[in-house]
Amino acid sequence: MKPPIGPATRLCMSLAARPGNFGSRFHNHLYDALGLNYVYKAFTTDDLAGAITGIRALGIRGCAVSMPFKEAVIPMLDGLRDSAAAIDSVNTIVNTDGDLLGYNTDYSAVRDLIADLPRVPFLLRGSGGMGKAVATALVDAGFPDGTIVARNEAAGRTLAERLGCRWQAEATGAAPLLVNVTPLGMTGADQDALAFTPDQIAAAQIIIDAVAKPVETPLLRAAQAAGKTVVTGAQIATLQALEQFVLYTGVRPSDEQVAAAEAYALS
Amino acid sequence: MKPPIGPATRLCMSLAARPGNFGSRFHNHLYDALGLNYVYKAFTTDDLAGAITGIRALGIRGCAVSMPFKEAVIPMLDGLRDSAAAIDSVNTIVNTDGDLLGYNTDYSAVRDLIADLPRVPFLLRGSGGMGKAVATALVDAGFPDGTIVARNEAAGRTLAERLGCRWQAEATGAAPLLVNVTPLGMTGADQDALAFTPDQIAAAQIIIDAVAKPVETPLLRAAQAAGKTVVTGAQIATLQALEQFVLYTGVRPSDEQVAAAEAYALS
Repeated sequence: MKPPIGPATRLCMSLAARPGNFGSRFHNHLYDALGLNYVYKAFTTDDLAGAITGIRALGIRGCAVSMPFKEAVIPMLDGLRDSAAAIDSVNTIVNTDGDLLGYNTDYSAVRDLIADLPRVPFLLRGSGGMGKAVATALVDAGFPDGTIVARNEAAGRTLAERLGCRWQAEATGAAPLLVNVTPLGMTGADQDALAFTPDQIAAAQIIIDAVAKPVETPLLRAAQAAGKTVVTGAQIATLQALEQFVLYTGVRPSDEQVAAAEAYALS
Repeated sequence: MKPPIGPATRLCMSLAARPGNFGSRFHNHLYDALGLNYVYKAFTTDDLAGAITGIRALGIRGCAVSMPFKEAVIPMLDGLRDSAAAIDSVNTIVNTDGDLLGYNTDYSAVRDLIADLPRVPFLLRGSGGMGKAVATALVDAGFPDGTIVARNEAAGRTLAERLGCRWQAEATGAAPLLVNVTPLGMTGADQDALAFTPDQIAAAQIIIDAVAKPVETPLLRAAQAAGKTVVTGAQIATLQALEQFVLYTGVRPSDEQVAAAEAYALS
């Protein structure tokens, strides 16, 4: 059992414009399972600099950073680790006695999940923070001949040029690796949307879908039915949260504990 | 049951040089008992201004303020309510959409606990933050002819002059109301110390002891054995925390719920 919250309890937190439930549920579930004297709480703010000042002043141990703060927070930190420097984007802050270091566990989680895949050309939909993390991890790992699909031409072209990829506005064409980093298929308005056409899926070998909720999106369902290799959004969400957990606590939970926390967080 | 911690959970907190357990245990016990979506966490800081900035930026709902921050925090707030203005000392901050108001629930709790006592002369030991709250509440309520006993002459004289009381360095003399606001009798090095002599206790009608832990100090035990009217530190600690709880949540727990939270917090 976790000790009752008291002066020795460490707080970890998140900052997002629209905070979700995943982090609170994943981390608090593991604190309970492991008996760690931590508590995790999601916050939003309209004063990012003030929030970072508060993290330092209150000795808050760690902070997950979501849209729209991932780049704006960089000058407020004391340094970036490789994962964040690779994409100039921070999704995790670790506070060690007032020294705030920025990490990007989305990038490092994707890097780990694609490590054993064949290096094939890719077609990636999306150009937001997570799109940048996934596309950069692919290019850094040696996946050749990438195409970034983004309706937002400025964001799409900027990302594509930075990575030596092509940009196109529409998700046409075929590639052996299809990557969805848009909300298509996510619980809500777009939950029935298929991010790629059946023909594109049939022609591909590998599908990566960054949507974590629901665990099975229309894209993943179609890919799995067709026997494709898949990397799921739940895998990415869980691995990046696990990396945060290890950074904050120094403790690595067992695979069973992680699976239980993931199931609870996505339920 | 309290809902799991998530984005909608409100954080309340405390700031102290040496944070104790009482607030965390009292408030979290009541949140659980009442099913309120709040969590309470004690903090310390070496950057008071940064901590207050963080309270605003993160929308932290309330903050208990202990030594040595009770006066320094005043210029950082948007206003003081009567209880804090009465003694220029804040032990409670309520954050309503970024508007930070300072209260002093030690003062208001003591004011309520002494309301029905006869107005008799008093001899009060102590000149710290709690001593100031109790002495001011007594004088404001019309208790006449007060004497402040404090080894620290500067603090003692300042408080006495402000209130129209006498100051003396040693706890000599008799008074119908004896008040201990020193650590004498508190769990730790001074736990066996009796704050007033048996003769002083025999000559008094009323004893107030601000020490909350243990619930029964040597002074309270002697006073109760002699049939004196007493106000206990546990009563003060609980009533001031209850007033904070109502300010933060807008919910007033039942007497039974408060008694259970008090017993847990002092256990």
